[in-house]
Amino acid sequence: MRTSQYILATLKETPSDAEIVSHQLMLRAGMIRRVASGLYTWLPSGLRVLKKVENIVREEMDKAGAIEMLMPIIQPADLWEESGRWEQFGPELLRINDRHNRPFALGPTHEEVITDFVRKEVSSYKQLPLTLYQVQTKVRDEVRPRFGVMRAREFTMKDAYSFHLSDECLEKTYQVMHTAYCNIFERLGLDYRPVIADTGSIGGSVSHEFHVLAESGEDAIAFSDASDYAANIEKAEALAPTDARPAATKELKAFPTPDAKTIAELKEHYGVKPHRGVKTLIVYGAPDENEQRGLVALIVRGDHELNELKAEKHPLVDSPLEMAKEEDIVAAIGAKPGSLGPVGLNMPIIVDRTANVMADFVAGANKDGEHFSGINWDRDVENYEVADIRNIVEGDPSPCGQGTLQIKRGIEVGHIFQLGTKYSEAMKAGVLSESGKNQIMTMGCYGIGVSRIVAAAIEQNNDEYGIKWPQPIAPFDLAIVPMNMHKSHRIPDIANNLYDGLKAQGIDVLFDDRKERPGVMFNDMELLGVPYTLVIGERNLDENKVELKNRRTGEKLMLDLDTAIAEIAALVKG
Amino acid sequence: MRTSQYILATLKETPSDAEIVSHQLMLRAGMIRRVASGLYTWLPSGLRVLKKVENIVREEMDKAGAIEMLMPIIQPADLWEESGRWEQFGPELLRINDRHNRPFALGPTHEEVITDFVRKEVSSYKQLPLTLYQVQTKVRDEVRPRFGVMRAREFTMKDAYSFHLSDECLEKTYQVMHTAYCNIFERLGLDYRPVIADTGSIGGSVSHEFHVLAESGEDAIAFSDASDYAANIEKAEALAPTDARPAATKELKAFPTPDAKTIAELKEHYGVKPHRGVKTLIVYGAPDENEQRGLVALIVRGDHELNELKAEKHPLVDSPLEMAKEEDIVAAIGAKPGSLGPVGLNMPIIVDRTANVMADFVAGANKDGEHFSGINWDRDVENYEVADIRNIVEGDPSPCGQGTLQIKRGIEVGHIFQLGTKYSEAMKAGVLSESGKNQIMTMGCYGIGVSRIVAAAIEQNNDEYGIKWPQPIAPFDLAIVPMNMHKSHRIPDIANNLYDGLKAQGIDVLFDDRKERPGVMFNDMELLGVPYTLVIGERNLDENKVELKNRRTGEKLMLDLDTAIAEIAALVKG
Repeated sequence: MRTSQYILATLKETPSDAEIVSHQLMLRAGMIRRVASGLYTWLPSGLRVLKKVENIVREEMDKAGAIEMLMPIIQPADLWEESGRWEQFGPELLRINDRHNRPFALGPTHEEVITDFVRKEVSSYKQLPLTLYQVQTKVRDEVRPRFGVMRAREFTMKDAYSFHLSDECLEKTYQVMHTAYCNIFERLGLDYRPVIADTGSIGGSVSHEFHVLAESGEDAIAFSDASDYAANIEKAEALAPTDARPAATKELKAFPTPDAKTIAELKEHYGVKPHRGVKTLIVYGAPDENEQRGLVALIVRGDHELNELKAEKHPLVDSPLEMAKEEDIVAAIGAKPGSLGPVGLNMPIIVDRTANVMADFVAGANKDGEHFSGINWDRDVENYEVADIRNIVEGDPSPCGQGTLQIKRGIEVGHIFQLGTKYSEAMKAGVLSESGKNQIMTMGCYGIGVSRIVAAAIEQNNDEYGIKWPQPIAPFDLAIVPMNMHKSHRIPDIANNLYDGLKAQGIDVLFDDRKERPGVMFNDMELLGVPYTLVIGERNLDENKVELKNRRTGEKLMLDLDTAIAEIAALVKG
Repeated sequence: MRTSQYILATLKETPSDAEIVSHQLMLRAGMIRRVASGLYTWLPSGLRVLKKVENIVREEMDKAGAIEMLMPIIQPADLWEESGRWEQFGPELLRINDRHNRPFALGPTHEEVITDFVRKEVSSYKQLPLTLYQVQTKVRDEVRPRFGVMRAREFTMKDAYSFHLSDECLEKTYQVMHTAYCNIFERLGLDYRPVIADTGSIGGSVSHEFHVLAESGEDAIAFSDASDYAANIEKAEALAPTDARPAATKELKAFPTPDAKTIAELKEHYGVKPHRGVKTLIVYGAPDENEQRGLVALIVRGDHELNELKAEKHPLVDSPLEMAKEEDIVAAIGAKPGSLGPVGLNMPIIVDRTANVMADFVAGANKDGEHFSGINWDRDVENYEVADIRNIVEGDPSPCGQGTLQIKRGIEVGHIFQLGTKYSEAMKAGVLSESGKNQIMTMGCYGIGVSRIVAAAIEQNNDEYGIKWPQPIAPFDLAIVPMNMHKSHRIPDIANNLYDGLKAQGIDVLFDDRKERPGVMFNDMELLGVPYTLVIGERNLDENKVELKNRRTGEKLMLDLDTAIAEIAALVKG
């Protein structure tokens, strides 16, 4: 491609509405333009990257035995009513009426359509297992679209669905998909981690997210420093401490704390170290048979954070988790938040595993402006349950049994689920089993945010000059930058010959044939993140040389003009 | 691909709701399934064909210098308001509101979005000409979706748009696109014709449609038998006869015709040959300065048909053309349709060129139940205009001056337009010209119905057994059908080796490894239209042979097992 016949569309200024670096660089490098909130046009450079990502995803899905098909974006409401999601889904589901006023949705996902397809087309266990996928435009009417294509309203996804007779078979395919996803992210040239994840509103039991690591990532991920273990921090288990709880050495004693409503204030005004105190959080309990909700106290060590996802999974706690209103707390306890604690508390108490091995600790006295010191479990608090209800912190032992946990940030770009029968049950998707009975299929689903990967790759690979693409997804493999070509006798022919020769080797070349100053051309190629730049200048030509610059390492190589094409081909394809 | 790991989904019965052969065969061959009216899932076999068509289109567009990008499906209403089409477009434009109640449309076409893009990104004449394209899912809320993917509500289109400083430049790019389209349809292996077409609601001046010829086509196309001339019958000019009008030989004479209200009845009951009479059609005239519409008479020879498109372009006639209501005709003339004619008619009369060279002809007398014979122009009818207002018929001289016209039927699969400044003017899309002035760009647009081509190809290529794909777009190049493989000792190994060997040659092979009777397998492969079937049977293997069957010609070749792969590769790729 010659820049003179291309739309480079690079910008010098950083657009003011772009908050994160990938959004800024995608605008500045001429990859995308905004059409409306959350709706983007992909310019030629952006589309080239998107297509390369898409092709790698497609090749690995095919290799893994998944079969590609294509479902419509517009889905009839009745399928969503069958699954129950027409009601459950919020306004992210963009609902529309056609000219005959029939209700449809623009698909954010295709569980309903694929389950309907399979229940009609697959009738026998002999046709199972079956994994189907598509690469498609999806729609999600985000309340606040932002970060460019990272959270857009229209985006490209690869979604796959598998169907099975048994959970064992599902687990096998799930593992195949897990491996395929690792291969995909490996081939994309990204630093990524598969992490144990929550299944959320999609449903199912086992689930992994695939994260591209980047400091700007929205999610926190816990890793073992000694194994492959990685989990979304929401989901990472905080093991019970192996050390036993020390024996009580102090008496229970009240002391006035008029200036302390938080752990930090307790430390500041009364010298209580955070790890010597506990936080007492009051939430609503699971409804009883009369749909009444009582209160439940959740207790974590003062320097720890409650993990809401873990807490709401406890049978005593209502889900989704809801913090109790102050008036309900005061009515039940007689004290306000800031002075609460487990001693004498007349409600179910759930104590975090780590808080449970504390002795002689500090907590609110359930009187405003008063705390107890020297609290000891069992002696001072008799009825309580112990559970894992906190977020892990760096240095915790890894739940896998090896090493300790570290925390990094990631961008979720893939998510795989063992769905089970959530959709097949609701939509009566069964097959004849070997024994001739109708049996509901069990399902898996596997998504990759194709357009999101483009932004995530930039978050992970950029510097002050622009994008540093991993070679496999760069819009071009190499840029030819001839210096002052239009004033030279020999440079045009040499540049054209190199261009033709490199193209013939199957290399994606961008030939910058504009009448621009070299500095402008270098800046554009660095901004666009082309992995190699081949600089053709008079001085080097005098010695029959051209210069090859590596965008990522900054390394410069002098190549003989005669062997340059072969050397570059070896580098780019090697 | 092995059928055991694929979804073949062939059907024995022809679905009752499929009216045309391509729709029937796409369902029966397992290419598509209906999700809702006009909304289809593409099964693996269908998607394979769709992708092959898409790739050929893409390659030829790239070769022609067009640059690929991707615009959103969801388009903001304000752009459509700027162009004026938010009001003009009917309910085919699927309008939606997002969660904030802002209006959007699901794009049936992208003139507005691309014009907005180019006016923002292109500022100088130096960046022109520029041709941009996308391959994308489009939405059109058809009042009566039918014929499967031939007229669906969601479909795949390639749409391209070009931008220019001058009409000469536009004409040049238009010609490049015309050539690219010819290359595309040539490579697709289809019998097609570029035909001169009307520009319709898209606007512009010059326009060509590309038709795949098929007897079931909705459009009639007029061809010269001696040149490349081809035009949509709507648009084909009926030349004025070169023979002069004969002199009058008969007197004007009224005769009673109580039993004749049509040309056919005139012939049946009164022996008037159709080409000796004329039809008189009363339509509404163009509104006058007070928005009042009078009546206008249109006269064509009895055996000819009015061409409404030609008629409505006449300045005297209202557009769109509307036939006058009977009460308005009776009020103005005093007679009902069936007895109307030009003699004594008190309204503007437009006479078709061929009707104008008639002498001594028959027409209604403007009295119910009465006709005149021996009518002669000028003598009996003084005020009239002459124009081309009829459809051409086979045997008419070609407007190109060479040969006579024939009529064939076609399916429109492409349409190119010299748009001019319709959109750029309305949306103020200008660039700085060489002289430093702001100049509105002139535009072309170029569409191909990618998913429609799949159906059109089947309409053109089928027989009683199923589809006969042109090789370049067949879902598979070749099917391996081993006979009774599961009872044989040697066939499985031989079939597997051939499968691996052919795949290694880059051939798309479908290996039918089901435990089915040979007849079932042959029928499925013929239905699916795979161009070659390689049959592996015990008897031929005794002589070290395998049989290759050509789906299109029925021809059977015996191949030596040892050289089969090389011979097949030469055939398929040659």
